[in-house]
Amino acid sequence: MVSLRAEGLVRLGTSFRSSIAGAESNVAIGLSRLGHSVRWLGRVGADEPGELVLRTLRAEGVEVSTVERDDAAPTGLILFEQRLPDVTRVQYHRSGSAGSRLSAADVVLDGDVRLLHLTGITPALGDGPREAVERAVARARELGATVSFDVNHRARLWSAADAAPVLTPLARRADVVIGSGDELDLVGGVNALLTAGVREVVTKLGADGAAVSTPDGEQRAPGHRVPVADSVGAGDAFTAGYLSALLDGLGPAERLARGNRAGAFAVATAGDWEGLPTRAELELLALGEGAALR
Amino acid sequence: MVSLRAEGLVRLGTSFRSSIAGAESNVAIGLSRLGHSVRWLGRVGADEPGELVLRTLRAEGVEVSTVERDDAAPTGLILFEQRLPDVTRVQYHRSGSAGSRLSAADVVLDGDVRLLHLTGITPALGDGPREAVERAVARARELGATVSFDVNHRARLWSAADAAPVLTPLARRADVVIGSGDELDLVGGVNALLTAGVREVVTKLGADGAAVSTPDGEQRAPGHRVPVADSVGAGDAFTAGYLSALLDGLGPAERLARGNRAGAFAVATAGDWEGLPTRAELELLALGEGAALR
Amino acid sequence: MVSLRAEGLVRLGTSFRSSIAGAESNVAIGLSRLGHSVRWLGRVGADEPGELVLRTLRAEGVEVSTVERDDAAPTGLILFEQRLPDVTRVQYHRSGSAGSRLSAADVVLDGDVRLLHLTGITPALGDGPREAVERAVARARELGATVSFDVNHRARLWSAADAAPVLTPLARRADVVIGSGDELDLVGGVNALLTAGVREVVTKLGADGAAVSTPDGEQRAPGHRVPVADSVGAGDAFTAGYLSALLDGLGPAERLARGNRAGAFAVATAGDWEGLPTRAELELLALGEGAALR
Amino acid sequence: MVSLRAEGLVRLGTSFRSSIAGAESNVAIGLSRLGHSVRWLGRVGADEPGELVLRTLRAEGVEVSTVERDDAAPTGLILFEQRLPDVTRVQYHRSGSAGSRLSAADVVLDGDVRLLHLTGITPALGDGPREAVERAVARARELGATVSFDVNHRARLWSAADAAPVLTPLARRADVVIGSGDELDLVGGVNALLTAGVREVVTKLGADGAAVSTPDGEQRAPGHRVPVADSVGAGDAFTAGYLSALLDGLGPAERLARGNRAGAFAVATAGDWEGLPTRAELELLALGEGAALR
Amino acid sequence: MVSLRAEGLVRLGTSFRSSIAGAESNVAIGLSRLGHSVRWLGRVGADEPGELVLRTLRAEGVEVSTVERDDAAPTGLILFEQRLPDVTRVQYHRSGSAGSRLSAADVVLDGDVRLLHLTGITPALGDGPREAVERAVARARELGATVSFDVNHRARLWSAADAAPVLTPLARRADVVIGSGDELDLVGGVNALLTAGVREVVTKLGADGAAVSTPDGEQRAPGHRVPVADSVGAGDAFTAGYLSALLDGLGPAERLARGNRAGAFAVATAGDWEGLPTRAELELLALGEGAALR
Amino acid sequence: MVSLRAEGLVRLGTSFRSSIAGAESNVAIGLSRLGHSVRWLGRVGADEPGELVLRTLRAEGVEVSTVERDDAAPTGLILFEQRLPDVTRVQYHRSGSAGSRLSAADVVLDGDVRLLHLTGITPALGDGPREAVERAVARARELGATVSFDVNHRARLWSAADAAPVLTPLARRADVVIGSGDELDLVGGVNALLTAGVREVVTKLGADGAAVSTPDGEQRAPGHRVPVADSVGAGDAFTAGYLSALLDGLGPAERLARGNRAGAFAVATAGDWEGLPTRAELELLALGEGAALR
Repeated sequence: MVSLRAEGLVRLGTSFRSSIAGAESNVAIGLSRLGHSVRWLGRVGADEPGELVLRTLRAEGVEVSTVERDDAAPTGLILFEQRLPDVTRVQYHRSGSAGSRLSAADVVLDGDVRLLHLTGITPALGDGPREAVERAVARARELGATVSFDVNHRARLWSAADAAPVLTPLARRADVVIGSGDELDLVGGVNALLTAGVREVVTKLGADGAAVSTPDGEQRAPGHRVPVADSVGAGDAFTAGYLSALLDGLGPAERLARGNRAGAFAVATAGDWEGLPTRAELELLALGEGAALR
Repeated sequence: MVSLRAEGLVRLGTSFRSSIAGAESNVAIGLSRLGHSVRWLGRVGADEPGELVLRTLRAEGVEVSTVERDDAAPTGLILFEQRLPDVTRVQYHRSGSAGSRLSAADVVLDGDVRLLHLTGITPALGDGPREAVERAVARARELGATVSFDVNHRARLWSAADAAPVLTPLARRADVVIGSGDELDLVGGVNALLTAGVREVVTKLGADGAAVSTPDGEQRAPGHRVPVADSVGAGDAFTAGYLSALLDGLGPAERLARGNRAGAFAVATAGDWEGLPTRAELELLALGEGAALR
Repeated sequence: MVSLRAEGLVRLGTSFRSSIAGAESNVAIGLSRLGHSVRWLGRVGADEPGELVLRTLRAEGVEVSTVERDDAAPTGLILFEQRLPDVTRVQYHRSGSAGSRLSAADVVLDGDVRLLHLTGITPALGDGPREAVERAVARARELGATVSFDVNHRARLWSAADAAPVLTPLARRADVVIGSGDELDLVGGVNALLTAGVREVVTKLGADGAAVSTPDGEQRAPGHRVPVADSVGAGDAFTAGYLSALLDGLGPAERLARGNRAGAFAVATAGDWEGLPTRAELELLALGEGAALR
Repeated sequence: MVSLRAEGLVRLGTSFRSSIAGAESNVAIGLSRLGHSVRWLGRVGADEPGELVLRTLRAEGVEVSTVERDDAAPTGLILFEQRLPDVTRVQYHRSGSAGSRLSAADVVLDGDVRLLHLTGITPALGDGPREAVERAVARARELGATVSFDVNHRARLWSAADAAPVLTPLARRADVVIGSGDELDLVGGVNALLTAGVREVVTKLGADGAAVSTPDGEQRAPGHRVPVADSVGAGDAFTAGYLSALLDGLGPAERLARGNRAGAFAVATAGDWEGLPTRAELELLALGEGAALR
Repeated sequence: MVSLRAEGLVRLGTSFRSSIAGAESNVAIGLSRLGHSVRWLGRVGADEPGELVLRTLRAEGVEVSTVERDDAAPTGLILFEQRLPDVTRVQYHRSGSAGSRLSAADVVLDGDVRLLHLTGITPALGDGPREAVERAVARARELGATVSFDVNHRARLWSAADAAPVLTPLARRADVVIGSGDELDLVGGVNALLTAGVREVVTKLGADGAAVSTPDGEQRAPGHRVPVADSVGAGDAFTAGYLSALLDGLGPAERLARGNRAGAFAVATAGDWEGLPTRAELELLALGEGAALR
Repeated sequence: MVSLRAEGLVRLGTSFRSSIAGAESNVAIGLSRLGHSVRWLGRVGADEPGELVLRTLRAEGVEVSTVERDDAAPTGLILFEQRLPDVTRVQYHRSGSAGSRLSAADVVLDGDVRLLHLTGITPALGDGPREAVERAVARARELGATVSFDVNHRARLWSAADAAPVLTPLARRADVVIGSGDELDLVGGVNALLTAGVREVVTKLGADGAAVSTPDGEQRAPGHRVPVADSVGAGDAFTAGYLSALLDGLGPAERLARGNRAGAFAVATAGDWEGLPTRAELELLALGEGAALR
């Protein structure tokens, strides 16, 4: 999806900055910056906004060679307007977009795949996307990959009542489930998930950090206090940091710590994904000193 | 419709300037600036882009008090990218928009209406808009108003083959038909239109000016040569100038002259309608001297 | 008046953003956005800055059809420079401006007028404006309209000593008097005003909210704590919110609450009036969630 | 004077870039860039716009240590709007400005002065400025300096009929008179000026170059054809180039050539004076090749 | 290399837009956009400007996985200032940069390489780069790849006298030599090159198009006349177009035509490489019509 | 040195704003704005960036007539990127720059010099700059001027181990030594400096203010709490304020107070030196009210 972010108020005829948006692409970029090999499975229009999506992902080292460029549907748009410091208004131009035409055939998963990350946004887009998610989970299972799932309930796409019956079984089939407290409740709650066999359930607590629950109990880690430039994308940054540490074989405390650290970078920088840290940059958060421009 | 005009190339992640777009609103603004009382019949979403449309039209003195703000559909978007000096790429996000849900009920035409202006874009948007056009023509006839029709064939909305059977009968019912040579051919050609009872047929010749054909013969007037800042909207500017002179009771030569003059303003200024002249400014074209900032 | 707001420091050769300024137009826009029918009585030059004033007010739905466009005097300018986070420097280019030539003849007050709002700035501009104010009060009385008066003492236009003898009798003739503590003292103090027959006296307390005194006693309401983007216009926003609730027939507590709420919007947004809330937006202040872009 | 140049159309609420403006300061900067020692005699407000004037002139190496900073009057403003490619609208906020309060006491002329340059704008500003000009001419005569005079008739400040009786005697007392054909006619015409004892009369011919008439006859030099970025200031650039060559002791052909060359730089660059050439840069006009950034 | 392009005049304290620059990367991007698989051989600093180079090339689909990120030297900078419409000033901050430390070890050429493209800039940067070029030619010969060489004499890096003895033997070893008339003379002239065994010698004629000489004679093709936005990079665009057609197995006339067409895109767009055409866009040049935003 | 400050993240291809940078020029501008006569001793390239340095210093009233413009070396560059709110990345392009070629011959110190200010940056640039510093101290001693020395250890230029043996003897020869606690330790510590004959040692404590130690004891003054726009240059602002009060003959408490006040201005404004206060502006810090734009 291409995002258009209003610099002032929309009704006054402001300018818009463009970028790309999407919880999955945010996580993909976050993991790539942290040094992992990542492929994005998605669908864009065969148009210039679609080129922006692909150029950006390629720039960030995310593999997009299998992405379909749909000749028959435009790349979706999302408009953002910061109405008040803590009120961002969002408008989707996504119905009929290429992304909503994602299908099982778009799921190309081969070779040495260690992790499949899914979000609860994809199934909200229609039957095709829902089948693509099914296919991806099945394929991940065949390849022995870990499946992580971020609930990401988007109230503007579907109600909790509509989402719950779709997302709950999906969450139960995942190894790692991530969400806010409300979102985790929407898919049955932490305990039910663990009982259903989910390996770890991660609760995002916003500025208060995060917690992870496993059959062995809960661990909690506080967030970093940084000036808020733009909180959009902070959850995805956390997820990328958490999954990166997971892929590195680190324990729960280090996983939460890296997640919180990545989240702080996202919050302290304008843009959804632009401020995500590289592995070397993770250290800057504590540093606060004029390091080299490198 | 809200327009988003890329400042650079879309695939490179540029900024976009927003404004409003639409052949009918361009003509409405042009007539209002030239001193006429104008009402715009249309439909916008009950959203901030819709507010931009209404605020802009109100600012320009165009009456919008009867415009429906549709709670169930967003205001349409149009994206522009200047790929080469003479190649502008256009993408509509208009399907399912409020504008495409225009219906006969939106046509509020009362009181002292002297002119109804229609374009061939509206019927391209669906059955509702087509009925709205029908209703408007019928109502104009009841009120004794002149009906002008700008063919405005938009190839990205429908093919010539699809458009011809819809637009031709519409054109034949108008008093004034305006179009490029190709467009006039699409609705049967100048002669057939005159034969069918159209009072005057105006051919837009781009930089070469324009011509008007009546049963009495053809008159032609050359265009002004100005540096091209942005040719989008030039045709609508011409139409506004032409119709303004018509409303003032001027003859064909003066109608063409005012149309060409208004067109030159549009071409010489960035934006579709932003540079349209007020009545006082019409004189500036020849002047070229440092007039007062007023 | 047209405002030119320096983006950096003036002496360094910065850019300026333009908008319109004026306590009365701020209140007018605030009331219009809250759904009331408003007319602005003023005077602008027959120049492009004057067009900016009129276009903006029309865009905001404020009636300006009776505003005189003065051919013999320019629209006034006001320059702003943010020198320090809490020091804004102001320079008027207002002497000899159209606004300073306002006269009793410009006061067109007819029909169903429920409220006349005046400020202490107008009488500072000269004899003509002072007569216009006199005429407006007289006319409001004839029409049975409530008269509200915001003291708005501008030290850069006249000293407290010069202002007091002019503003005090004016305040005493009003039904509602609004001002900071200092300003209310300048016109005799809360008690004296009540004694003189003023129905309600409202004290603006900045970030601490506001209080209203009536013969029945005082009520106080705390302000909203929001990040400060630009405090210019906050007082006018409060006034608009207060008067809106008054027109809706609400009690003192609701009047103060809506005033404080509108003030918070103004403070949290760049621009004097740009961030003023619509009636629907009033609820956003507590919301803090990604609502639709509408 | 501080100039505010609209980036778009004023009525649409555009941004303004600030700089300094004034025929005399343009010539002063032009001469300084060409390597001459220059002092500017003027008056600014004791305000930030005044600081911008002084900072800019100092940056350009123009001596301003004797300039009065007027505590009682603001620095004048001039607004520019490019309405059409060849129509620039101008609005002065200059009445009552510090510059209009220039007086004979501001004229500090001492030491080794070789040239005094005057324009016909100063006497248009009032009695004080007129006396300042008188004083300057008298003082230049005492010091044995050449007096150059650019007619610079500004129709927005005074009519030709008002200007002629003031400017004609002034022109006759100068050694070098510069103007367009119309301006030279306003002060009596080339022949009358030569008869009155003027040493050389220079006619600016715009894009066609310039001509100089002396008792020995006329010489003419064609202008450079360059793309027009901004023609404001071209005449002052020409004057600076011409006077620079005069101070270097060059003949009429070289004087015209340097004037035309400097004029071409001004025309090809945005801004009134920003593009004026240094002595080394004069050669670039023919060069057209990627020289060093120096 | 990272380019910093002044938006105004450097001495006035302007802003700079950043991008990447380099004849080789321009050609690489051009070929990639035209659908070919391209690898860039170069060296950047392990700093953020270096990341900009790599991100941009990856975005454009150019393979950079073998590029060394030098921890001990910064990425080079190049500053541009447009002093006059046809005078661009250039300043390198390139001595000691990572790029100047390129060495034979950086040349990774394996697998199915059909073409190696070299420029005369690389050998100007020092002994290491010169050895890298030698190594690349040797390796290309082993792989049976065509070698193309663009003379690209940069007078700011070395004089013609210094360049000739280095570039001439290099040119003679190439299969395709490209340059302006002057550059081709610097390496011995068209005839000497053909005699030495060069298969085709291409003369870039700027706006006049280009010519190709082979042992069979000369063919010439005129350039496209387009408004000049920025002529930097036009030669590289031509080279990319020419080589693309060569790789497609097209004859000389089509090679020149595609080169000229690509050059026209570069000239008509701001930026060195930003406007290079995709294969589908090549057709737009003749089209001039509002195509889809895709 | 010319500074280029990234507006966003460098790797994303952002814009850069240019200005001048340098601890000595910051102090020079600070002293000039506070009303002192100041000369800057330095060296710039004979290029446009060098012109920016000279124009800026002249604009600020700093005397630069003796500054050498080096034809053989470019003006140095410094790039800044704000990576996180409190992490600014810095990259120098300074090796081989004109500034690093400063030599004793560039030190022109004559007439009535009351104070020589040096920093520990200059000796880090090479042997020539080190000799220039030696020469300056010797010359100051001959002229009876006070010598102040700001340790200014720049870890990116040299390590503490390398810097200590060079800076310690220099600090001991000064009358006033200024630095952070760490920096003062690097040159031997407060007590050792006082023992060595330094008259006063000033410790910069950042947001906590500053302290001055003399043989008579220590005084401390708290800093002002202002919103942080940009902390770069705050130390130099402090130094300028402190030295200004010293030149005015004020006591330690007033010296610290003016230093802290100047530092607060620097912190509260974007840019290294742009926000430095004039003498009149010093009072604004407490004021917080809309003063005149002057």
